[in-house]
Amino acid sequence: MLKGLTYAGVGSIESDEHFIRLASQYGFHAVDLDASRLVDVHGIKGAHELLQNHGVEIGSIGLPVEWRTTEEAFRDGLVKLAQNAAAASALGCTSCCTYILPSTDLKAAHFMAHATRRLRTCAQILGAYGIRLGLEFVGPHHLRTRWKHPFIWTLQETLDWIDTIGERNVGLLFDAYHWYTNELTAADIERLRPEQIVHVHINDAPDVPVQEALDNGRLYPGEGVIDLVGFLGALHRIGYKGVVAQEILTSTPQADSPERLIARSKTGFDKVYNAAGL
Amino acid sequence: MLKGLTYAGVGSIESDEHFIRLASQYGFHAVDLDASRLVDVHGIKGAHELLQNHGVEIGSIGLPVEWRTTEEAFRDGLVKLAQNAAAASALGCTSCCTYILPSTDLKAAHFMAHATRRLRTCAQILGAYGIRLGLEFVGPHHLRTRWKHPFIWTLQETLDWIDTIGERNVGLLFDAYHWYTNELTAADIERLRPEQIVHVHINDAPDVPVQEALDNGRLYPGEGVIDLVGFLGALHRIGYKGVVAQEILTSTPQADSPERLIARSKTGFDKVYNAAGL
Amino acid sequence: MLKGLTYAGVGSIESDEHFIRLASQYGFHAVDLDASRLVDVHGIKGAHELLQNHGVEIGSIGLPVEWRTTEEAFRDGLVKLAQNAAAASALGCTSCCTYILPSTDLKAAHFMAHATRRLRTCAQILGAYGIRLGLEFVGPHHLRTRWKHPFIWTLQETLDWIDTIGERNVGLLFDAYHWYTNELTAADIERLRPEQIVHVHINDAPDVPVQEALDNGRLYPGEGVIDLVGFLGALHRIGYKGVVAQEILTSTPQADSPERLIARSKTGFDKVYNAAGL
Amino acid sequence: MLKGLTYAGVGSIESDEHFIRLASQYGFHAVDLDASRLVDVHGIKGAHELLQNHGVEIGSIGLPVEWRTTEEAFRDGLVKLAQNAAAASALGCTSCCTYILPSTDLKAAHFMAHATRRLRTCAQILGAYGIRLGLEFVGPHHLRTRWKHPFIWTLQETLDWIDTIGERNVGLLFDAYHWYTNELTAADIERLRPEQIVHVHINDAPDVPVQEALDNGRLYPGEGVIDLVGFLGALHRIGYKGVVAQEILTSTPQADSPERLIARSKTGFDKVYNAAGL
Repeated sequence: MLKGLTYAGVGSIESDEHFIRLASQYGFHAVDLDASRLVDVHGIKGAHELLQNHGVEIGSIGLPVEWRTTEEAFRDGLVKLAQNAAAASALGCTSCCTYILPSTDLKAAHFMAHATRRLRTCAQILGAYGIRLGLEFVGPHHLRTRWKHPFIWTLQETLDWIDTIGERNVGLLFDAYHWYTNELTAADIERLRPEQIVHVHINDAPDVPVQEALDNGRLYPGEGVIDLVGFLGALHRIGYKGVVAQEILTSTPQADSPERLIARSKTGFDKVYNAAGL
Repeated sequence: MLKGLTYAGVGSIESDEHFIRLASQYGFHAVDLDASRLVDVHGIKGAHELLQNHGVEIGSIGLPVEWRTTEEAFRDGLVKLAQNAAAASALGCTSCCTYILPSTDLKAAHFMAHATRRLRTCAQILGAYGIRLGLEFVGPHHLRTRWKHPFIWTLQETLDWIDTIGERNVGLLFDAYHWYTNELTAADIERLRPEQIVHVHINDAPDVPVQEALDNGRLYPGEGVIDLVGFLGALHRIGYKGVVAQEILTSTPQADSPERLIARSKTGFDKVYNAAGL
Repeated sequence: MLKGLTYAGVGSIESDEHFIRLASQYGFHAVDLDASRLVDVHGIKGAHELLQNHGVEIGSIGLPVEWRTTEEAFRDGLVKLAQNAAAASALGCTSCCTYILPSTDLKAAHFMAHATRRLRTCAQILGAYGIRLGLEFVGPHHLRTRWKHPFIWTLQETLDWIDTIGERNVGLLFDAYHWYTNELTAADIERLRPEQIVHVHINDAPDVPVQEALDNGRLYPGEGVIDLVGFLGALHRIGYKGVVAQEILTSTPQADSPERLIARSKTGFDKVYNAAGL
Repeated sequence: MLKGLTYAGVGSIESDEHFIRLASQYGFHAVDLDASRLVDVHGIKGAHELLQNHGVEIGSIGLPVEWRTTEEAFRDGLVKLAQNAAAASALGCTSCCTYILPSTDLKAAHFMAHATRRLRTCAQILGAYGIRLGLEFVGPHHLRTRWKHPFIWTLQETLDWIDTIGERNVGLLFDAYHWYTNELTAADIERLRPEQIVHVHINDAPDVPVQEALDNGRLYPGEGVIDLVGFLGALHRIGYKGVVAQEILTSTPQADSPERLIARSKTGFDKVYNAAGL
């Protein structure tokens, strides 16, 4: 399982190049970033060399499509989706992810109908480029009632939804925080097949009752109460071999330097990977 | 638009044969019934002749699949679905319908995900037999809060869902009572293309505030307050040429004889068809 | 059925604006052109006004995706497809068409598998913009053996393929030349439902044995041997209300001026429409 | 990888019960048979106990649908498909397989269109029961020209077709004989992901030029020239953990007793499994 970073938790990085350089320097093998932007700045050849020279790959790109609001907003993202997918594909990235908010101000069933069709179209476009779509269920309790109607937030609901979307290249973005806030266990992971998981996020939670863990109150791996050893061990046992990318959402920006933050991330990864025997 | 009958509103009919005979006698050209049962009793050849001799066709069959509860119940219906589709197809029927309850005790979004997949599978099976699936939105206000969570009940929601299901053979069952209780107009029908409508139900509503019209408090066509002339006229103008089948749901069984009830239906149909210039 | 023009048969037109102006001047109500190009030159507002001021709509855009060769070529067209679909949609156009060559140098079955998937993805993207995809079967006999393996060229094969692609927004581009070279009759059209037809091409054939009619040897409507009265009459009877666009493919460019060619087209349309009682 | 048997190569077995007993006796863990028939004879509970008491599971059922000829024949199989899927599912079997003949008397492209739609419907029905559909490409050269037009027979064509069918539960039945007659290598297997393989067949080929290896001229594992050690090793390395079922097609029935044939199979399996270090 490749150690990876996202921009969430690494402070004020100057550029994608800076990000790639630091990731490499601290032993990370993957970064999640906007492949189109990287190609715009460096060209495909330049971007490819930049990644290769640092021994880093792109873990996943974000889905650049607004599938949660109006049909117009949805349509507006499709050109960009094809462009981003082309860029990601050219750089060898095969993963694109989006998250599912657990509640909505829209009527839940009607929204589900829209969202199913829209994500199916996104998956079709991504599939043309050999890219999979990862859907992230979001567990923190406060978000389940943040908007008017409950939507979905559990692993099972998300697996069922993936079946309904029905495209072959759709799976899970599995985030440790949502595993924790859904009070799932290693056994829940062990019931999955590795191909059901497109991407993994790692992070940690403060020592508060699980119902009070805030989505933007996350800690670095190994600094909190999530059983990350159980989490990683179960992923390893089922045969997941993809990227495990750190994502630390916080209410205020990190004040520390990127170097110190990424060094701290490295310490956290080493701690939990070692404890898991990986 | 062919005048048709369902079993709802015709009293204590002895048998499908009795139903077909009475329908024919009173000038109806279609009956909605269980094609498999008809074939079981009369054989395919006998059923075919019975219909042909009376100048009556099968308007639509009901969807024999429980898509609203458990996966087990859903699966159990698929054998019967294939059997019924084969029987209906052999008798020239190309329509199968089901209704959508406007609220649910299940989590609405999760249920929508299940229901979308299940109806897609049903549509696939029906499609193999050249049969279309009609989905009936259900408008009465009391049903919108009858169960815990709102599901869907409007025309637009249903059209959006049909798009999401995504199969080519899915459309609307358009019922006058739900058109009325959704406070739709002729203009709403005129925005449809005829191929979006798989089947039509006709009936009437008592002179109570529309919010109080009960789903099982329906009247015979022409005996209530629904603008059936506007309803039929709009359907005709967009080019709908299928069956318009009477469906009178009531809280207690009709005491009258089938002959008198069907004569009453005929009077109602004649009244509203004539007023619509059909 | 709206009278329309394509660029095939109108000579050396200077610009889309010129095309629209001439079409309007000679009583045509639709032009097939590249909506993206029109928007690039005039802006969405300008393009909209240009069309509206001339009482002309866009009949159909061409599919800007290479679905017949490599996966790379296919992917390269998807960005442009989304862009074109957005432009067409903004201008009220709801049709996009492509043609099917009746033979191929690729292994036919494998190519069919690729082509089915690729056109399904195109249809999905178009569907997001409310646009339908029309597939044109191509009848001339010489093309059936032009490449190594037979592919498909009949109406029935194309309808079956549309079912297989399985998206709700796919139908036929029905071209009079291919109707003729397939030796189809008005009865074949009358077995269709109007919604199965996305777009129509009209043209005529020289008085040679049907097996010798060349794809690029077409005549103006009313100047050849195709029973266009039967063709148009049948389309009208089933309720087709869309565009009938002239497409005159010839082996050498037309020498005449656009004005004279379009006047000739008008004469041809008037002749066959009148004869068909339209 | 579980050692399994099919009826092909075990001689005159008296009954499914006999087959299960012998399979168990000789150390096999899976049998491919008709789950519906087993349930018809023993009931679900009885069938379940029979399998469990012998430590044997059902490896795969055959697809009981005629998807290669007429639409009528196709439809006729759908009821049986749902019944068989229900029986298989009740007994814990999650695999259903069919084979693809490499040539056809039908027009290849048109047949591919039909076959894609039909197998998609089969996959949908199987999916409702949690069962995957495995497609077996068939390599022997003589079958490639046995019928009028080439269809598909390579691994890549089959993978492409699976993508086109587009359902999540479709994958490969990978047969050693077809791997050999397609002249594939271990590296070709190593490019697959294990979830792309639904089921595996094992058998051996006589020492004749590969072009002359007949489909019904198969040998027992380890008695011929196929590099079964390479085959099994590659399957193991990519993480395939399912059933490897012997399938010995021969031009004349095996004269030997089932006991002796299955003992011989056991010897063959042991030889190649041991040599592969499994």
